[in-house]
Amino acid sequence: MIFPPTSLPLSGNRFTVIYRLAGADELDVRAKIKGICLEQTVELPEELLPDGDIRAEVVGYLESLQHLEANYFEAAISYAIETSGFELPQLLNVMFGNTSMQPYIRVERLELPASLLQAFKGPRFGRVGLRKLVNGPARPLLCTALKPMGLPVKDLAHLAYQFALGGIDLIKDDHGLANQPFHPFHERVRRCAAAVNEANQKSGYHCLYVPNITAPTQQIVERAFFAKEAGAGGVMLIPGLVGLDMLRLLAEDDNFGLPVISHPAYWGSYVTHPWQGVSHEVTYGQLPRLAGADATIFVNYGGRFSFSREDCQRIIKGTEDLLGQLKPIFPIPGGGMTLARLPEMLQFYGREVIFLIAGGLYAQGPDLVENCRQFRALVDQKGDGGSAG
Amino acid sequence: MIFPPTSLPLSGNRFTVIYRLAGADELDVRAKIKGICLEQTVELPEELLPDGDIRAEVVGYLESLQHLEANYFEAAISYAIETSGFELPQLLNVMFGNTSMQPYIRVERLELPASLLQAFKGPRFGRVGLRKLVNGPARPLLCTALKPMGLPVKDLAHLAYQFALGGIDLIKDDHGLANQPFHPFHERVRRCAAAVNEANQKSGYHCLYVPNITAPTQQIVERAFFAKEAGAGGVMLIPGLVGLDMLRLLAEDDNFGLPVISHPAYWGSYVTHPWQGVSHEVTYGQLPRLAGADATIFVNYGGRFSFSREDCQRIIKGTEDLLGQLKPIFPIPGGGMTLARLPEMLQFYGREVIFLIAGGLYAQGPDLVENCRQFRALVDQKGDGGSAG
Repeated sequence: MIFPPTSLPLSGNRFTVIYRLAGADELDVRAKIKGICLEQTVELPEELLPDGDIRAEVVGYLESLQHLEANYFEAAISYAIETSGFELPQLLNVMFGNTSMQPYIRVERLELPASLLQAFKGPRFGRVGLRKLVNGPARPLLCTALKPMGLPVKDLAHLAYQFALGGIDLIKDDHGLANQPFHPFHERVRRCAAAVNEANQKSGYHCLYVPNITAPTQQIVERAFFAKEAGAGGVMLIPGLVGLDMLRLLAEDDNFGLPVISHPAYWGSYVTHPWQGVSHEVTYGQLPRLAGADATIFVNYGGRFSFSREDCQRIIKGTEDLLGQLKPIFPIPGGGMTLARLPEMLQFYGREVIFLIAGGLYAQGPDLVENCRQFRALVDQKGDGGSAG
Repeated sequence: MIFPPTSLPLSGNRFTVIYRLAGADELDVRAKIKGICLEQTVELPEELLPDGDIRAEVVGYLESLQHLEANYFEAAISYAIETSGFELPQLLNVMFGNTSMQPYIRVERLELPASLLQAFKGPRFGRVGLRKLVNGPARPLLCTALKPMGLPVKDLAHLAYQFALGGIDLIKDDHGLANQPFHPFHERVRRCAAAVNEANQKSGYHCLYVPNITAPTQQIVERAFFAKEAGAGGVMLIPGLVGLDMLRLLAEDDNFGLPVISHPAYWGSYVTHPWQGVSHEVTYGQLPRLAGADATIFVNYGGRFSFSREDCQRIIKGTEDLLGQLKPIFPIPGGGMTLARLPEMLQFYGREVIFLIAGGLYAQGPDLVENCRQFRALVDQKGDGGSAG
């Protein structure tokens, strides 16, 4: 025996990952599940494991197994909360680290007990808090984006001014605006924040400018604080590019204290195959919320991307289903949306949503302020109006 | 016209992304390509773009298109180097940010000009440097892992001692060892590093202990420096969990200055579908190298994972093909390997490789030191021996 028997200080509390997986039959699937239980924890064949708590508690348990259709099954596997070390990267590692390299296994949903969730502060604002910031207690909120990449700063700032004046609640940088020589971050943020705040003075609205602070690692926090100093109302980060835990770091920072919005780029490969990767609900719902995002951008059904209505419903579920003490966050569907589609989107999403229309708003007519007023009028009918002043 | 014509300070230098994509026919594929050229840069329909440099230079160009087989095509699309802002996260964003959310498009390869590569320091050691550190100028190098999760620190340290004594070159933490209560990071690293260095004193070998420093964002650099102080010979990071740019930050830090090894966890979903995501060559070859990893772990063909021989060959290609001034790095195939398979693996990989055998080394026989000596003897035949003392 290589290893002596072990006795570990474990609480007995476990978290559960719901996986979907394919197999020739139930026997085959049970073998794959045993593989997951070992791979995600001890990474040794069962016969090599020491007796005691490692074998009995550290290895994942199969809690339930269900036949879905044809060769597909759904398995609930639980892990001791201590395997996560109460750290977000390691929680994702146990959930799907090495198993991400196996085909036809998909993480469908996370079920986290209070004993684990208490390690995470979660969203600072969430839906209720964001609504207060923009003075929109009940209606759907409105978002647009500054673009295109390459537009000089003064023109981006002028766009921001018009959007704010027209009644948009959140103006984000397009996610491709970083720190390029043609619109360097600091100058852009200073001028766009000033333009939005000037428009707010005039309109009485409470529009937030939300710059993209995705950057080299050592500059992200600096850019966030610079944005705050410059008068930005929040920041946007792409966790697929800089790590989900970076979002958590910012969201939990009491000295920072602004809303943080999650952008979906580079994470699409987790969701594009229906039986592989990590589900829409987890990738764009549960994970950003767990990290503390106040809102999560994703691509709407029926636009220029391939998400289905059901995919979008599952993301919404991830933003609002009970998750311990963690606040519900806003879904932000976008990507190829137009004002013409808004009535249908209102029906689908209801009030608990931030609509992101960018290209469609630019294309609506030559007067951007007027375009925004039309956008606003369409949602004001739906709620409290959040009237100016 | 919403936007005035633009004139931008662009160098004219471009980088190229090779994509593979599916379409009903060439016409359909060309429409998709136009979509990528816009999506990855300006994110607006072409008709809305301002005249001048944005339309002419910022939007991606189709450089070449090739029919591969059936409905599959390969397209080379170039982008102005300035779109990357000379920052790694934004480079990935232009490469595949939003397009990751489109099915049946895969990033196959990156072609980066010197004008862009000069923004990256790349690997500090690379193959030649790592060989010097472990005194193995020509033979394949050997790696194993400390496991299982849950094993008390004193037992992990004893394992490390035996592996080092037996002639392993790099002993990494298993990637699931983080900062769990049963083997907290600082105590584990202190004791394992001491054990390896004690064994080195005795054996005359130059074994490196390589702890896993994947952690909450604000602790990663601290853990790296703690490991260095404690006598570790390198560190391992999981960029799929904490962002590729975090690896770059560490690798470029002259005050740190130890080898950095990239672990493949959580990035598997990019590669598991042959026509979606980001290729093995890019994900596990080009990207870690670009960030400055000295070696890249991936799962070997024929083990308990699904990578093929060709997938592994493509990763090797990514580790060594000309990439400006960036040093070639070591491929580290692992995952279900055994000593019995080593002769075949030697034939496949040659000398420019680090073999990772963990479970298979534990299972080889009751005497771990002896198991390591067998492992070492198998590769010493192949090269310089790097003899003790």
